Amino acid sequence: MERNGHAEMAMETVRNGGKQTNGTGSDPPTSKVAAPDDEWTILERVVRVLADEGYLGPATDQKPVVEFEYPEDLKKLIHFPMDERMPSSADTIERIVRKVLHYSVRTGHRHFHNQLFAGVDPYGLTGSWITEALNTSQYTFEVGPTFTLIEDAVIEKCMQLFGFGQGDGILCPGGSMSNMYAMVAARFRAVPNVKCTGVTNLSEPLVVFTSEDAHYSITKGVHWLGIGLDNLVKVKSDQRGRMIPQELEAAIDSVRASGRKPFFVNATAGTTVLGAFDDFSQLADICERYGVWLHIDACLGGTAVLSQRHRHLLRGADRAQSLAWNPHKTLGAPLQCSVFLVKERGLLHECNAAKADYLFQQDKFYDISYDTGDKSVQCGRKVDAFKFWLMYKARGQQGLEALVDNAFECAAVLHEEVRRRDGFRLVLDEYQYTNISFWYVPSWLRVERPEQETAAWWQRLYTVTADIKERMVKRGTTLIGYVPLLHKGIGNFFRMVVTCHPRPSYASMMFIVDEIERVGEDLPRKI
Amino acid sequence: MERNGHAEMAMETVRNGGKQTNGTGSDPPTSKVAAPDDEWTILERVVRVLADEGYLGPATDQKPVVEFEYPEDLKKLIHFPMDERMPSSADTIERIVRKVLHYSVRTGHRHFHNQLFAGVDPYGLTGSWITEALNTSQYTFEVGPTFTLIEDAVIEKCMQLFGFGQGDGILCPGGSMSNMYAMVAARFRAVPNVKCTGVTNLSEPLVVFTSEDAHYSITKGVHWLGIGLDNLVKVKSDQRGRMIPQELEAAIDSVRASGRKPFFVNATAGTTVLGAFDDFSQLADICERYGVWLHIDACLGGTAVLSQRHRHLLRGADRAQSLAWNPHKTLGAPLQCSVFLVKERGLLHECNAAKADYLFQQDKFYDISYDTGDKSVQCGRKVDAFKFWLMYKARGQQGLEALVDNAFECAAVLHEEVRRRDGFRLVLDEYQYTNISFWYVPSWLRVERPEQETAAWWQRLYTVTADIKERMVKRGTTLIGYVPLLHKGIGNFFRMVVTCHPRPSYASMMFIVDEIERVGEDLPRKI
Repeated sequence: MERNGHAEMAMETVRNGGKQTNGTGSDPPTSKVAAPDDEWTILERVVRVLADEGYLGPATDQKPVVEFEYPEDLKKLIHFPMDERMPSSADTIERIVRKVLHYSVRTGHRHFHNQLFAGVDPYGLTGSWITEALNTSQYTFEVGPTFTLIEDAVIEKCMQLFGFGQGDGILCPGGSMSNMYAMVAARFRAVPNVKCTGVTNLSEPLVVFTSEDAHYSITKGVHWLGIGLDNLVKVKSDQRGRMIPQELEAAIDSVRASGRKPFFVNATAGTTVLGAFDDFSQLADICERYGVWLHIDACLGGTAVLSQRHRHLLRGADRAQSLAWNPHKTLGAPLQCSVFLVKERGLLHECNAAKADYLFQQDKFYDISYDTGDKSVQCGRKVDAFKFWLMYKARGQQGLEALVDNAFECAAVLHEEVRRRDGFRLVLDEYQYTNISFWYVPSWLRVERPEQETAAWWQRLYTVTADIKERMVKRGTTLIGYVPLLHKGIGNFFRMVVTCHPRPSYASMMFIVDEIERVGEDLPRKI
Repeated sequence: MERNGHAEMAMETVRNGGKQTNGTGSDPPTSKVAAPDDEWTILERVVRVLADEGYLGPATDQKPVVEFEYPEDLKKLIHFPMDERMPSSADTIERIVRKVLHYSVRTGHRHFHNQLFAGVDPYGLTGSWITEALNTSQYTFEVGPTFTLIEDAVIEKCMQLFGFGQGDGILCPGGSMSNMYAMVAARFRAVPNVKCTGVTNLSEPLVVFTSEDAHYSITKGVHWLGIGLDNLVKVKSDQRGRMIPQELEAAIDSVRASGRKPFFVNATAGTTVLGAFDDFSQLADICERYGVWLHIDACLGGTAVLSQRHRHLLRGADRAQSLAWNPHKTLGAPLQCSVFLVKERGLLHECNAAKADYLFQQDKFYDISYDTGDKSVQCGRKVDAFKFWLMYKARGQQGLEALVDNAFECAAVLHEEVRRRDGFRLVLDEYQYTNISFWYVPSWLRVERPEQETAAWWQRLYTVTADIKERMVKRGTTLIGYVPLLHKGIGNFFRMVVTCHPRPSYASMMFIVDEIERVGEDLPRKI
């Protein structure tokens, strides 16, 4: 019946002009949709709206960072449900887009410091607009000839930067995925037949080690990969957030004694909260001694590699078996742009290939070693490499280095200002990456003697921190994150991460402390 | 020492103007980088280049689908290595971009039919340019207020379309990830403590079932999640590519008899090659009887849900526990746009949450149930929902339906033309989705009697298929995929998938058969 329906339509079609065979005629059987040519005018129109609203460049600074509305109120301002039966006019679309822009957060505003990313690098954005328009997938040379070679070039460059020699790599949809790639590769080396057997019924269960300051993606990965959180050891870190090598060694010994198999250590270059860098050389010594895979989650801190002055932070990272770096964090490539590197060439393919013959035909007419899609756990894969490639082509090594150095210098300025200004207090005297953590104690909360800083006083300060944040959001002046570090017994403090974009300056750093002071002093004085 | 370096810089900074506190002054300490205002001009410039080169709309049809160059030759035409020390001029960047565009594949060309996706919906592209410019992450209401509510609306709409009631969902970086989400959720229900224990030492190993025609992402997922390919059963499918329910039932019985635990059946709505739809009602009956999770990989075929005429293909899909759909395939949302739906509300969060307190603070001033990031295995997550939301807002239900119906009608036309034209031969007499599979037998290869179609003759036809493809690529006239179906003992044939964008027409369908005929007849006649 279904077939008859098709066939009948087809016959009618052929009668009504299907015989046109010049390949240029157009005979759309539907009349409910606009002509294709007209539809494309929306793009130009919306680019104008983006520019009008200041989203394309520093003009965004003239607007509030956010026009905050509570979720229930925002639902009254924008009609979110998708219940349109008929097409909308371009005017309607423009009106909708303007509203969405009005109530969105301006991450490109110079006073947005809420996450590990902020505004985009304009060259990165240019790259992303191009790849979105070209809409192809990164799996075969056939549909992405230029982008295949561009991804290769990006991986090559990253291997050179991080001292990974003749390894391999792949671009991933975010750092959590990159870290999972690492665990999957390490597991494949630890249990050669794991692809077939899985981790069920291993004689020695596999165990992962990471520091208590490391990113939660390791926890999620351990769950997804079937290893189980019982087999994840969170190694103690020091006051500055760095994994304590002696603690790692003791943990490995203890796991081995329990009859389980340590197979993966995740070290961190730039922890999420404190920006700490583990001591990779010491960790590599331990991992080598025990035959354990060392991975470095450099998603945040990997950007330091671009600076001659700061790359010492990554000393010893070249001894790891794998590494993840997100140019989409402080460097400002548009989300998503995450690089996963592995030192053993061929491993990614060996480990992940499923040899789908509908996509990776073996009888293609070009060298199919350029079809890299079977290295991936994904099938269709967005082109992310081009963003970073274009940034590099445009800025050169010196341009990128200057951006990174500028971020570090601004972080130093902020750190120094927080250290010396009344009422501000650093969480750490020292810092490594561009994360600066601190409190503001309003004048009415200040005490004269340290012993007056009771548990209740600290609780009040933690609440004040959240209150200041709330008021700044509602004023729309600045967005800056606050975080607790519960495993260190510390409640809410401000965590400022200085990013490369939008270009920070001494003035933009000063604005933060001024604004926090202003808002903090204005709070109702309920002690 | 490191700290002293920072402090010294900071002091100098403060002396040299760090005291500016008006928040508008700018004092970049670096001079090697262009002023931020100038940098943004690149965007406008490149949009013009994209338009010039015909990439923004139907003008792309005036160019070849691809200017093919072999990898080694392409490397001579574009300088891929990243070895620039100094910044490049805007002219240089423009020149590089033009070259990349020149040698890229025009997936938006009316004669590009190489994958399950093709050109973008212009409204979808508009949505993606907006979210790329706004550069935020989909994890908290705080940094994505509008996009949080938009993702909710998209999930709500999809649940309504697929009959998923009050379930839940999430946007994923591709269908392979969506399918993994399904297995992780099902595993969590099958083994309540799996998050802690992993799948190590289960008394009954878990087993996944999928059809031999299903997508290879199930294989990859089974490997990643630690289940192991030994615990993946590929159920036999019928000649049209549909899983045979009786075979599934027998397989489940046999797995149970072996002391293992069937926990997950992957059914397919629109298989990759033949576009087959499994019989969901029958599969649901079986899964209910055995207490096994039914997931539907509707990544390709889910788009039929938008058409009143074709949604019958999905009958019974509402009985599944989860479903994945990629609007980025035939519907034309820009890559990536994949929706994962699950019927049990709350499960995604319960299963995946890691409760990172630096991101999902519990003392926020708004209703934190809007922070949906802990449902995800990712941390930072690109905004993908907005593309589909804007497409729906712009076209309405009727507009999208018309696009889908048009694709089906064009597929019917192509099927009928292939059926009746000399030399063409269908792989299947019947088809379900818009995949049409066929061979072209050049006149010099045709035989008079069926028994003359020997194994050698078929091998020759498979080679001819690949040869025709090669020549079409090099002519730049059209890109259409060829595939073998080895488990059915079939070699290379053309697999045409009719997509919604760029709007296919009867003429564009006729062009394919004409061109294949033309090229096939021109091949050297070495039989």
